[in-house]
Amino acid sequence: MSLIVQKYGGTSVGDVDRIKNVARRVKEAYVAGNQLVVVVSARSGVTNELLGRAKALNPHPDDREMDMLLSVGEQETIALTAMALHAIGVPAVSRTGWQAGITTDQAHTRARIQSISGGDIREQLAAGKVVILAGFQGLSTEGHVTTFGRGGSDLSAIAIASALKADLCQICTDVDGVYTADPRIVPDAVKLDEISYEEMLELASSGSKVMQNRAVEFAQKFNVVFEVRSSFNNNPGTIVKEEVASMEDVVVSGVALDKNQARIVVSDLPDRPGTAAMLFNALANAGISVDTIVQGPGIEGKARMTFTVPREDIYRAEKALKESFPDDDFSGRVFEAYEIAKVSVVGVGMRSHSGVAATLFDALAKAGINIQLVSTSEIKISVGVEPDDAEEATRAVHAAFGLGA
Amino acid sequence: MSLIVQKYGGTSVGDVDRIKNVARRVKEAYVAGNQLVVVVSARSGVTNELLGRAKALNPHPDDREMDMLLSVGEQETIALTAMALHAIGVPAVSRTGWQAGITTDQAHTRARIQSISGGDIREQLAAGKVVILAGFQGLSTEGHVTTFGRGGSDLSAIAIASALKADLCQICTDVDGVYTADPRIVPDAVKLDEISYEEMLELASSGSKVMQNRAVEFAQKFNVVFEVRSSFNNNPGTIVKEEVASMEDVVVSGVALDKNQARIVVSDLPDRPGTAAMLFNALANAGISVDTIVQGPGIEGKARMTFTVPREDIYRAEKALKESFPDDDFSGRVFEAYEIAKVSVVGVGMRSHSGVAATLFDALAKAGINIQLVSTSEIKISVGVEPDDAEEATRAVHAAFGLGA
Repeated sequence: MSLIVQKYGGTSVGDVDRIKNVARRVKEAYVAGNQLVVVVSARSGVTNELLGRAKALNPHPDDREMDMLLSVGEQETIALTAMALHAIGVPAVSRTGWQAGITTDQAHTRARIQSISGGDIREQLAAGKVVILAGFQGLSTEGHVTTFGRGGSDLSAIAIASALKADLCQICTDVDGVYTADPRIVPDAVKLDEISYEEMLELASSGSKVMQNRAVEFAQKFNVVFEVRSSFNNNPGTIVKEEVASMEDVVVSGVALDKNQARIVVSDLPDRPGTAAMLFNALANAGISVDTIVQGPGIEGKARMTFTVPREDIYRAEKALKESFPDDDFSGRVFEAYEIAKVSVVGVGMRSHSGVAATLFDALAKAGINIQLVSTSEIKISVGVEPDDAEEATRAVHAAFGLGA
Repeated sequence: MSLIVQKYGGTSVGDVDRIKNVARRVKEAYVAGNQLVVVVSARSGVTNELLGRAKALNPHPDDREMDMLLSVGEQETIALTAMALHAIGVPAVSRTGWQAGITTDQAHTRARIQSISGGDIREQLAAGKVVILAGFQGLSTEGHVTTFGRGGSDLSAIAIASALKADLCQICTDVDGVYTADPRIVPDAVKLDEISYEEMLELASSGSKVMQNRAVEFAQKFNVVFEVRSSFNNNPGTIVKEEVASMEDVVVSGVALDKNQARIVVSDLPDRPGTAAMLFNALANAGISVDTIVQGPGIEGKARMTFTVPREDIYRAEKALKESFPDDDFSGRVFEAYEIAKVSVVGVGMRSHSGVAATLFDALAKAGINIQLVSTSEIKISVGVEPDDAEEATRAVHAAFGLGA
């Protein structure tokens, strides 16, 4: 008998038929003799409906009240899922975040988990019950309902799996697992059997949005092995776990594509300490997250800073930068700002192998694709290319590293 | 400075514009220097949507899960109402039933309140905050969310008013108060300035569904004076309170009409002990609530039992009765079953006045309306009439007792 945590996202519980599907899958695992904690999200669309009403009443709704509001989405789903299980003969009980003793800090709408007592979940499991747990939510130390922000239900699943020392944590979603590249772009992309937390993090931050990074970081911190798999079939998924030696045999695990970037080049900057700080403070104050930053050597006493921001922030970023350099003396100006796509190769084996960059650049050169920006991390190399070249670049790189079927 | 509890039902918070209206009304009372606890229901329609999904998943949903499900309706409204108040500069915090320390028994979907600690409501009021409290819900002694059933938000308002020793409890609804009769039927019906709990109870059970009886009974038990008033204007409403001597000067306070009744006559019953018990047990087992019961003397050793049931239960009642008399020896049979309307005159003064029945019967006779059934309680006389005669009967009786403007 294993203790399994399964998580189903908003699309997987989007309507009553999909909730029935989830119930059937949970029943399969239950009749096979397992103990189950099932973490569910709000039905897809519910959160946006609630947000719409909130915004209609108050353009800047209070974070505490926002959590009170948004947490109802998951509470609805847990009750409906328990009812669906009862209908097919599976004993089940629902538990909210506060009933499960998920204690968080007071940072409403982006709360961090401090501890998980589990409430009476262990007793319910011992009594043969399936426990349906509301994802995305907890209770602050002050007794208020909190939510975890984007990807919060994944975080709930990983965290409860950790607290209960579950044997298996399955993140059930609308894809079969983690692929070497997006199969819609690269037809011969291959599902990975396993991947390290670090690779998963780099893939996610490079545009492969299977899961939000917070949940993966939590899993890494508490060493929770989890599987990303489909809610709609029984194919084995991708196991995400700590790096093991054999993983290093694979130089590149996957190719990620992020089309949602804009590149900004600020030129004519005074080449002296404090310039970069001033520039990025201006962006931070405007609430704009900066991804890649590249600075080459200064020319003729002037520095030139290149970085990327999410595409939707491009105009706000320009505005913030122009306002931060009002006087002629400090004459930095926005030189270029245009859309860009980022193609990244990721692999823990990269650390101990050379030649990855060469293979990457060679593949792009052969495909006639110009490189506009390069950045690297310990297990990732990213290149910026024209958006029109992005998909061809992804396919070329995927093939060059022999990742296809 | 007064402590006021205001309750707004589902229609009053039915959409964002109506929630804004509630917020404006609350602000008026707040800026006038009062402390406010505002009890709100689920937006009208939400409960039916949730029930629809539940029934689609399970024809007999578990009561505990039903409470988990339905309680989200009120939780949504409290958050939205708090946001609407913030938008117009009123400090407000929302509280669920469990946060307000509303402890109930474990009778899910029809829980009874056992105690109310108030949680931190007193502290929030003292800090100048308006507290928005979810109606209809509490927490069982076992830690599960419970709901109170129909009219539950009225009960929440009366109960929190009692627990906090509020100066005023206002039940804000879509009518201006309690009238001498339904103004849609009797154009010169008059709004009552005050009415006793007992009259309110008899009016409600006679078809004037301003409030459910449970809330009124609770108010009577704990002597909570409350006002029924409109959510949409500032007209004074009707004060409901313990009977005072002056109320007895009024023989009849109002005329109620219940069109939703069916009369069933069972004849040929053995005129011996146990017959009535068997008959009403059969109905009770079928979950059918019986209203009026009339039994005259037996004729030739046979008894005849007349009673009324809600109109929608008429076929189920017939079926239950026929199945309960299967053998020839016990040869009771359903004689008649047809729809009926019940017109009732209610008044605490009735106890010490004679002639009410005579005036009532005389008024109906002059209007040419036949009486099919009569029943009385200490402060009420009800007559059953043909549904087609019901509205004319109501107007005739209202006029006969001089209740009009």
